[in-house]
Amino acid sequence: MESKPVIPGRDTLLVAEGRATAAAIRAEKPDGPWSREDLLTVFDQLKPTGYLGSTIDRQHGGSGLALGQFASLLEGLATEVPFLSNHSVQRFIVGAGSPEVRELVLPGLLDGTRIGSVAITEPHGGSSIREMRTTVVPDGAELVLNGSKDWVTHAMTADTAAVLCSDEQENPVRVIVDLYAPGVTRIPLHAHGLRHLTFGSLQFDDVRIQRWRVLEEDGVAGAKAGLGIARTLVAVQAVALGFRALVDATEHLATRTVRGSRVIDLDLTSGRVGALAAELQGARLLAYHAIEAVEAGQEAAAAMASGAKAHACAVAVRACSELVSTCAGHGLDRTSRLGDYRDDAEMLGTADGTGLVNHIIWGSYLKKHLGECF
Amino acid sequence: MESKPVIPGRDTLLVAEGRATAAAIRAEKPDGPWSREDLLTVFDQLKPTGYLGSTIDRQHGGSGLALGQFASLLEGLATEVPFLSNHSVQRFIVGAGSPEVRELVLPGLLDGTRIGSVAITEPHGGSSIREMRTTVVPDGAELVLNGSKDWVTHAMTADTAAVLCSDEQENPVRVIVDLYAPGVTRIPLHAHGLRHLTFGSLQFDDVRIQRWRVLEEDGVAGAKAGLGIARTLVAVQAVALGFRALVDATEHLATRTVRGSRVIDLDLTSGRVGALAAELQGARLLAYHAIEAVEAGQEAAAAMASGAKAHACAVAVRACSELVSTCAGHGLDRTSRLGDYRDDAEMLGTADGTGLVNHIIWGSYLKKHLGECF
Amino acid sequence: MESKPVIPGRDTLLVAEGRATAAAIRAEKPDGPWSREDLLTVFDQLKPTGYLGSTIDRQHGGSGLALGQFASLLEGLATEVPFLSNHSVQRFIVGAGSPEVRELVLPGLLDGTRIGSVAITEPHGGSSIREMRTTVVPDGAELVLNGSKDWVTHAMTADTAAVLCSDEQENPVRVIVDLYAPGVTRIPLHAHGLRHLTFGSLQFDDVRIQRWRVLEEDGVAGAKAGLGIARTLVAVQAVALGFRALVDATEHLATRTVRGSRVIDLDLTSGRVGALAAELQGARLLAYHAIEAVEAGQEAAAAMASGAKAHACAVAVRACSELVSTCAGHGLDRTSRLGDYRDDAEMLGTADGTGLVNHIIWGSYLKKHLGECF
Amino acid sequence: MESKPVIPGRDTLLVAEGRATAAAIRAEKPDGPWSREDLLTVFDQLKPTGYLGSTIDRQHGGSGLALGQFASLLEGLATEVPFLSNHSVQRFIVGAGSPEVRELVLPGLLDGTRIGSVAITEPHGGSSIREMRTTVVPDGAELVLNGSKDWVTHAMTADTAAVLCSDEQENPVRVIVDLYAPGVTRIPLHAHGLRHLTFGSLQFDDVRIQRWRVLEEDGVAGAKAGLGIARTLVAVQAVALGFRALVDATEHLATRTVRGSRVIDLDLTSGRVGALAAELQGARLLAYHAIEAVEAGQEAAAAMASGAKAHACAVAVRACSELVSTCAGHGLDRTSRLGDYRDDAEMLGTADGTGLVNHIIWGSYLKKHLGECF
Repeated sequence: MESKPVIPGRDTLLVAEGRATAAAIRAEKPDGPWSREDLLTVFDQLKPTGYLGSTIDRQHGGSGLALGQFASLLEGLATEVPFLSNHSVQRFIVGAGSPEVRELVLPGLLDGTRIGSVAITEPHGGSSIREMRTTVVPDGAELVLNGSKDWVTHAMTADTAAVLCSDEQENPVRVIVDLYAPGVTRIPLHAHGLRHLTFGSLQFDDVRIQRWRVLEEDGVAGAKAGLGIARTLVAVQAVALGFRALVDATEHLATRTVRGSRVIDLDLTSGRVGALAAELQGARLLAYHAIEAVEAGQEAAAAMASGAKAHACAVAVRACSELVSTCAGHGLDRTSRLGDYRDDAEMLGTADGTGLVNHIIWGSYLKKHLGECF
Repeated sequence: MESKPVIPGRDTLLVAEGRATAAAIRAEKPDGPWSREDLLTVFDQLKPTGYLGSTIDRQHGGSGLALGQFASLLEGLATEVPFLSNHSVQRFIVGAGSPEVRELVLPGLLDGTRIGSVAITEPHGGSSIREMRTTVVPDGAELVLNGSKDWVTHAMTADTAAVLCSDEQENPVRVIVDLYAPGVTRIPLHAHGLRHLTFGSLQFDDVRIQRWRVLEEDGVAGAKAGLGIARTLVAVQAVALGFRALVDATEHLATRTVRGSRVIDLDLTSGRVGALAAELQGARLLAYHAIEAVEAGQEAAAAMASGAKAHACAVAVRACSELVSTCAGHGLDRTSRLGDYRDDAEMLGTADGTGLVNHIIWGSYLKKHLGECF
Repeated sequence: MESKPVIPGRDTLLVAEGRATAAAIRAEKPDGPWSREDLLTVFDQLKPTGYLGSTIDRQHGGSGLALGQFASLLEGLATEVPFLSNHSVQRFIVGAGSPEVRELVLPGLLDGTRIGSVAITEPHGGSSIREMRTTVVPDGAELVLNGSKDWVTHAMTADTAAVLCSDEQENPVRVIVDLYAPGVTRIPLHAHGLRHLTFGSLQFDDVRIQRWRVLEEDGVAGAKAGLGIARTLVAVQAVALGFRALVDATEHLATRTVRGSRVIDLDLTSGRVGALAAELQGARLLAYHAIEAVEAGQEAAAAMASGAKAHACAVAVRACSELVSTCAGHGLDRTSRLGDYRDDAEMLGTADGTGLVNHIIWGSYLKKHLGECF
Repeated sequence: MESKPVIPGRDTLLVAEGRATAAAIRAEKPDGPWSREDLLTVFDQLKPTGYLGSTIDRQHGGSGLALGQFASLLEGLATEVPFLSNHSVQRFIVGAGSPEVRELVLPGLLDGTRIGSVAITEPHGGSSIREMRTTVVPDGAELVLNGSKDWVTHAMTADTAAVLCSDEQENPVRVIVDLYAPGVTRIPLHAHGLRHLTFGSLQFDDVRIQRWRVLEEDGVAGAKAGLGIARTLVAVQAVALGFRALVDATEHLATRTVRGSRVIDLDLTSGRVGALAAELQGARLLAYHAIEAVEAGQEAAAAMASGAKAHACAVAVRACSELVSTCAGHGLDRTSRLGDYRDDAEMLGTADGTGLVNHIIWGSYLKKHLGECF
């Protein structure tokens, strides 16, 4: 339908391509968590879409997608296979990697034969960049890494991790770690949502690290820029889950009757469908609005990404939770997937900073700029 | 700040012009309700902005603004003088008025020497176009109008009203009524919000109407198109009130301390500022998104306008209510205006259909289009 | 602490007994769903508490507990093993069973060697007593049962079911069905919550029923009275889950730090703990208030039970959902049980009528009695 | 209706007496704010109910009401004349006043010829007992009072105020101040709610105070005990306003039709009536539960009073706000009083500590007692 409203920055063809690819992936895979072999097949299926090279320039071997295009692809994927990740480490390496890390680590990540992960959160709580207890310090010609990280996506299947830690001057740095190295232990976590993926803790006990594995950047700036992009991508995925739940719920309610009327035809139902869709669409527009700010390099972009992410996840969780209740037995039946959408959205809400943390980031920025922005 | 994010369809210069004009208006006027003389001065002050001619083509004597431009102007005005109205009847007349009504009624409305109002809601409840009890039926060479209307903006000050009623075939029609005609009675209503304006009931007892006062249109289509535009305009105004309350509240909280910290600096405060701003900004984006759909004549436009309006008003009322509570005594002090913003937003929420009615309209449309739209 | 506030109708010793018994049960059982053998062991462990005989007079072989006492016991059990059921059919039989059903079916249920279930909801939607499509009609000297029921607790493990159906005059009746009879098919449902239990559909294809298996009662009145009691019992269990989640969450937040402070010590946390506890305690008081009304045989009792149940479940689900988010990774980790409490509370919210249905029942009653009640 | 559910601690006869008295008061008074003469007439009308002597022992000239009885009386009054106050200073004086203050100040307060007020909040923010900037220090044989207080109820009409301040050791003390003394300035505040009353700031510039005007108590303990009682009384009044709004709204919705049905008969309406009534009734039960704890002198009583007050006001404001929206034009019409109920409840929510402050008090207590309490 040509006349349908266009959301700036969103590429409907890539959304559609994401959906089609996701459906194909989902059809062939077990319920999860997927093994490393399963995942490699998935990333192979994703390769033609540009997923693995994401927004990296073509001259660096990337896909050259605009952030909005990549977000659209992820939006399309999200309803079936949310939060697949394995695209961030590539960007980090192209942004700040040494020649050795570009030559030795990057190719496998870009062609989908290696899986990357990102390790930020620490067990004591929070993901404040300035409170890292994981350390990387010189030890002879090399470095040695100690500490532990929680809630690492792909923890049980990844080959490589970008680990945020403190150096000997207590400055934050990011290190590209080989997860098969001696001293690395993986401990699985079992989460309520995103059950197709593995999550876990990574423990580093005197893991030896070559100096070329350290990213050449301000670790805070690098982590923040990475988080800004990651948060907008989470935001569009959360909204997609909310809309998917709305579509499924309305389809279900068309099959139910009360006193001779279809439940979907009740004013009560229409009113709630309208209210939820308005919230979700507002959240989607806010997410793509933040994406455009990131693309334009605006000063407000990182804060906007935090606000958009916190808002999108809150709206998606609320929508899914209400729809679970509204659909009664159907919502609680594990074959219906409504509960999965809610659990997945809840997980997204915690990834890359909780809603509270992200709203504080965005609110702190705003308090100084409210007058000029609005 | 050049790099600030741009909202498609929104004209920041016109927002600024609206704000400056509103500040000038507010500075000179009593608290309200304003007399007819006060209002005529206001509309005279607004004339240079193009307010009175709104989106009407210049060739028809209008201002030739795009809907997004006009909405931006109203957004700017809203924080000081929301819901000024007196621009709709002009559009109705240009759209479907006879030569006589264009010649005799339109000029005074366009030059701000006459005030127009719109009468839709009836006392028995609701504003369903198909349940009108007000009738206009032939009586000799003329027509005769009977019935009554509630919640007419400018009821006590307007010269002219566009009255929705049923003709002798029970079809809806709109009639341009001279409010000084015999048989017209005005009864004031006293509302909690929008206290600068008058509201009231209009009663029509055998009011004689010349045939050229009937708009030549499908009354349902005309009313619906008018409502679509009106709803988007209300939506941007509601969001403006919410943001204005947020700015005022943060300024106040910067003056308050608790245990030695400024309240504005607490994480709790930052988190809520972020959450409210995200909701408001999402609602603003949704409103301008609907405006673009209206401008493009998309099939979904009227339903989107309903959803955007219901959402914007709900978000604005929630935000203002929370900020009244957060600011404690300041919020309850009538000199602070936070309570006025809430009451004004609440009034906007009821104008042109309640939130429930508008969410039902939008939800009913969506249920048939969810699959293709998202 | 002797001076702690007493909730009328609630027996703190029985709450404590429930908790101790539940802890013992939980310690020995697998995660679930439990087999019939597991369940029989559970009911054997529960026998000394009076669980199986509940509020039935001692002279009829029951435990002679007041409803408030039985509710207190269930409240105590709920945090570990919510919604164990298998006490309702006993009450139905003592209330309206024939001599044969009392002699042949009741003893096994009362001594915990047989498991009873209740079948009300039908697949087409809702649990309106007057829209039953399951029928029991005469066929020679006996009756024949046809139809199907959804969401039957213990569907895969029960021996007996009380099935609500229509007789040949289309009047509602309840029949005590032997689930091993020819023509009975059990189909499992897999639910998000209450994973220690089995749920399922029961299909009845020409199941032959002896006439003495029909309860001698007005089926509507019997079902309503049964639902009133069931709903109050669900209400106290839902609140218990909410409080349990609050205790677990506060314990967890005492182990987390942010900028050098324990999260539990933040004003933000205290404020939310206070707000959630106030909501939960209000819901608990409302539940025991309804229980006292049921015990006193008040006219309003059934409506109050509906209101108390809908409110308790809504409050519990909201509290658990917020706590899952607040605890971030911990909330999403399946070892933490916070997500289970939420899912269990969500299931309770749907059992015996959704929140909407129960609020409609209570609201419909209230509309006629608001003036006199308040 | 004899069989209606009884709320422990609540005296339905006194509720009824309160309502009848309030109706008589309202019928004769102007809209407000009331003059000192108006108020003296009101307190004269209230005298027979025991209002002025409240819970003070009869031997000290009080009314000897239990706290629950006095709360019931205030609940009955609240729907027409909420927050009349002028009963606290009497209790403070009987509790800790010198012989002179008992002889010279108390009688006029008890017989309703003098009006008392309570001054706690300071302009810089909050009402923390330990951050008082108002001081009372020795000056010769007497003391001298300096500072200012905000949001004093009856500020423009009272004769006497109990003022919380710091003595020369920076300990909190309460002083009974003659508001006609030199150096006292009253500045009116204009509030959105409780428009029948006056509020204002009191400024004290070198006000000379006789030593016998200082209450002989631990000022912190005295203020806390006073606040505990005050908060429970506010709680029952807030709930009463919420129920009153619910009654008015349902009466209005019985007069409105949509598509041929009365709005009150829609399931949507019944569901919301049920949900709001459940919340309000839970809040009422919690308030009387706290009252019983205060009466029994339980350790948890003050914290419970804070939780009950914050919860009751939040629930009442939410209910009134929703009902204003639901009733559309009627809700916004100032003749309907729905908006007044909302504004009054909002004011109650700020009196004696905001919702956030009170939830923090209650939550901070609970965090240490969750295990044992629930």
